Amino acid sequence: MNIVIIGGVASGAKAAAKVKRLLPNSSVKIYTDDTHVSYSSCGLPYYIQGNFADYSSLLVRSPEEFKASGIDVFLNSKAEKILPEQQDVLISNLEKSELVHYDKLIIATGASPVRPKISGIDNFNNIFTVRTIEDGIKIREKMLKSKRVVIIGGGYIGIEILEAFSRNGVYTHLFERSPQIMPTLDAEMSETVKKRLNSIENKNFELHTDTLVTEFTGSNGILTGVKTSDGKEYECEMAVVCAGVKPNIEPAKEAGIEIGETGAIKVNKLMRTSVENIFACGDCAEKTHIVSGKKVWIPLGSTANKEGRCAAMNVAGVYCEFEGILGSMVTRCLNTTIAMTGLTEKEALEIGFKPVSVVVSKYDKVAYMPDTGEITLKVVADKITGLLLGAQAVGSIGADKRVNTVTSGLIGHLTVEEFSNNDLTYSPAYSPTIDPLLNAMQILCNKTARSC
Amino acid sequence: MNIVIIGGVASGAKAAAKVKRLLPNSSVKIYTDDTHVSYSSCGLPYYIQGNFADYSSLLVRSPEEFKASGIDVFLNSKAEKILPEQQDVLISNLEKSELVHYDKLIIATGASPVRPKISGIDNFNNIFTVRTIEDGIKIREKMLKSKRVVIIGGGYIGIEILEAFSRNGVYTHLFERSPQIMPTLDAEMSETVKKRLNSIENKNFELHTDTLVTEFTGSNGILTGVKTSDGKEYECEMAVVCAGVKPNIEPAKEAGIEIGETGAIKVNKLMRTSVENIFACGDCAEKTHIVSGKKVWIPLGSTANKEGRCAAMNVAGVYCEFEGILGSMVTRCLNTTIAMTGLTEKEALEIGFKPVSVVVSKYDKVAYMPDTGEITLKVVADKITGLLLGAQAVGSIGADKRVNTVTSGLIGHLTVEEFSNNDLTYSPAYSPTIDPLLNAMQILCNKTARSC
Repeated sequence: MNIVIIGGVASGAKAAAKVKRLLPNSSVKIYTDDTHVSYSSCGLPYYIQGNFADYSSLLVRSPEEFKASGIDVFLNSKAEKILPEQQDVLISNLEKSELVHYDKLIIATGASPVRPKISGIDNFNNIFTVRTIEDGIKIREKMLKSKRVVIIGGGYIGIEILEAFSRNGVYTHLFERSPQIMPTLDAEMSETVKKRLNSIENKNFELHTDTLVTEFTGSNGILTGVKTSDGKEYECEMAVVCAGVKPNIEPAKEAGIEIGETGAIKVNKLMRTSVENIFACGDCAEKTHIVSGKKVWIPLGSTANKEGRCAAMNVAGVYCEFEGILGSMVTRCLNTTIAMTGLTEKEALEIGFKPVSVVVSKYDKVAYMPDTGEITLKVVADKITGLLLGAQAVGSIGADKRVNTVTSGLIGHLTVEEFSNNDLTYSPAYSPTIDPLLNAMQILCNKTARSC
Repeated sequence: MNIVIIGGVASGAKAAAKVKRLLPNSSVKIYTDDTHVSYSSCGLPYYIQGNFADYSSLLVRSPEEFKASGIDVFLNSKAEKILPEQQDVLISNLEKSELVHYDKLIIATGASPVRPKISGIDNFNNIFTVRTIEDGIKIREKMLKSKRVVIIGGGYIGIEILEAFSRNGVYTHLFERSPQIMPTLDAEMSETVKKRLNSIENKNFELHTDTLVTEFTGSNGILTGVKTSDGKEYECEMAVVCAGVKPNIEPAKEAGIEIGETGAIKVNKLMRTSVENIFACGDCAEKTHIVSGKKVWIPLGSTANKEGRCAAMNVAGVYCEFEGILGSMVTRCLNTTIAMTGLTEKEALEIGFKPVSVVVSKYDKVAYMPDTGEITLKVVADKITGLLLGAQAVGSIGADKRVNTVTSGLIGHLTVEEFSNNDLTYSPAYSPTIDPLLNAMQILCNKTARSC
């Protein structure tokens, strides 16, 4: 059996390794237009920061390791066209184009950074996006020679890059066009992020929300500044654009593979596309949200990994269903951990729930312990049924612990009342006697129709 | 309404505060034979360690604060006898005995350290147990003047005291009569604890398992050493006995209140005892295990707090059920976090499940990040139904996060297969792409009859 995988960062690499283990006699080939395969793109901000010296730490498996396990990797090789009727893919590399035959095809083409239509964006070499290892290397090199930089976009990649620049002593202006840093959070949680970051002593950055970068300025191909919607100008030696990503759905779309309502490739629970013998997984594929049941597109490395495994199993004839996602995420910017799972209040309302919510700010450990931090937690439930819908946490490092505790509750479709009976671990070094999460749930319980 | 509460550390203090808020016009009185009321006894090891200067940090509410909210606290006042037929309690303090009438009585008498029958245990002043603030003050004072100490018992209090002594540069011998440090863990997890502690460079302690202290030796009321079951002798300037606790069920038992099969006071979900108008909560009361449905006695501060709240609500006529516990706990000794929830494999087998289990040892973050630690996780499920039964974690500080994530799964009675679909938060700074917990669950899944 010829198994062809296009794309090889997270889901593609995982699928290749898994399918080869399940079907050792099959031919497994990865084609990628990237210069590297099987790497942790989520680790790029930490490479840029200098948390480890060599970018090769980001590599999960090298082409040589793939080769040793019987998988062929073709770098700089772009899948130009999928021909489902003859089960071929047209692959082009620097030298030639060729048709590669597949019995099963796995599309794992990932996502690409959005390049917003800002005047001058294509005129300068020192404007970067963050996606590939090449990007990471270039940004780190340039950062080490820079004193003033601009970040466009205040989502999780933007603020992770902000941390990297700040820790390297580079003065940073971050511009976010929406009113919120971390626009996916509910407004008051985003405000908590902003307050915490702005409270850092001698901070070497400025957060500008509600502010558009309208023009990149410079000369001779070198960026020297940006103009913004509030009529100001900022000098800089480099800019990083973190304005979101879009799924790489070409050439799937062109081949007639169904694209979902979210704009990503439609798949069923088995990671099958609408076309026979073609699977899709990772950032190019649409996902199902377990809480809402709706189709969503939330591209994350952990999901890509699981979907790659599931696609590989079904390709190999081992039945596997991928149930969907909760939209769980965690990120960090300097003194602040930000984590969320399930639906925000805003999302819950849009979907048609009648959400009620509670926000608490509490110590993360018993107050008398050293290194006690503060966590702000928001929990959301449906007023009518009492069903738990989601949680957001901003604060000390323990924030992600509380959110992960909620994920299992969402998987189990617990009501707030049921969750309130949770027996969380307690020791003064790890949490207050009544954890902030239980505290929030007890208050939330009283706001639901099934009060407890 | 006269509400009398006997005992005032955790559940008693919580119940008093809650019931007074619900029934502001009632008379609420706390009688305790302790010298302090409403304090965090779980924090004593950290006071002894010197994590904070003043023991008053451990006090949650002072008698004056209780007074200000209309609650009378009587210290050094022991409940000698309960007289249910006339609804009186006989209270004795240093000066007198008196009958105190109650409409509702809450028994929150807690637990006391077990004093094992070791030769010489009552002969010396410098043998301590850890329960009250007085104990903590005396141990810290003596520790600061000591170079060699002995701890008897390797449960969680024993190892927390070990951390305190070790951090203060006092050379410690810890003796545990069972083959395991942390005897409540499954054997291989206990072994992991021991290995981690023994791997500490220049460690200033020795762990002796399978070793009984057979005699305390000394002269003129001053302990100078211990003899052990392996025929050895150890010099020391003080000893701390951490050999477990027993519920304080007198005078409840004497008054004819039903005692449960575990030896603690039997209560229903409303925290009512077998006798009209008498409630019990906290360490003196029996609990129901949510996973097994069995009666258990696992005395912990977090449970005491919740039971106190629930007892108060029912006393006040606000219906509240306390569903039970999972036996969740976390503790720390130096470089090692230890956490567990639900049933161990040993317990599951005893109860009649057909347990299967998986142990994994993994990095707690992506390997290239700084400060990456290791976690050993054990997850247990029932082979036949696939029902998740429990989890144990030993390792870096993230161990408790994984265990708390399992607690919600146990509350929701998830199968391993369902849990495997969990969408945990991921970022290289917080976990590997596939969290060790999901990794363990995926392997465990294959061991259940409902393999996934």
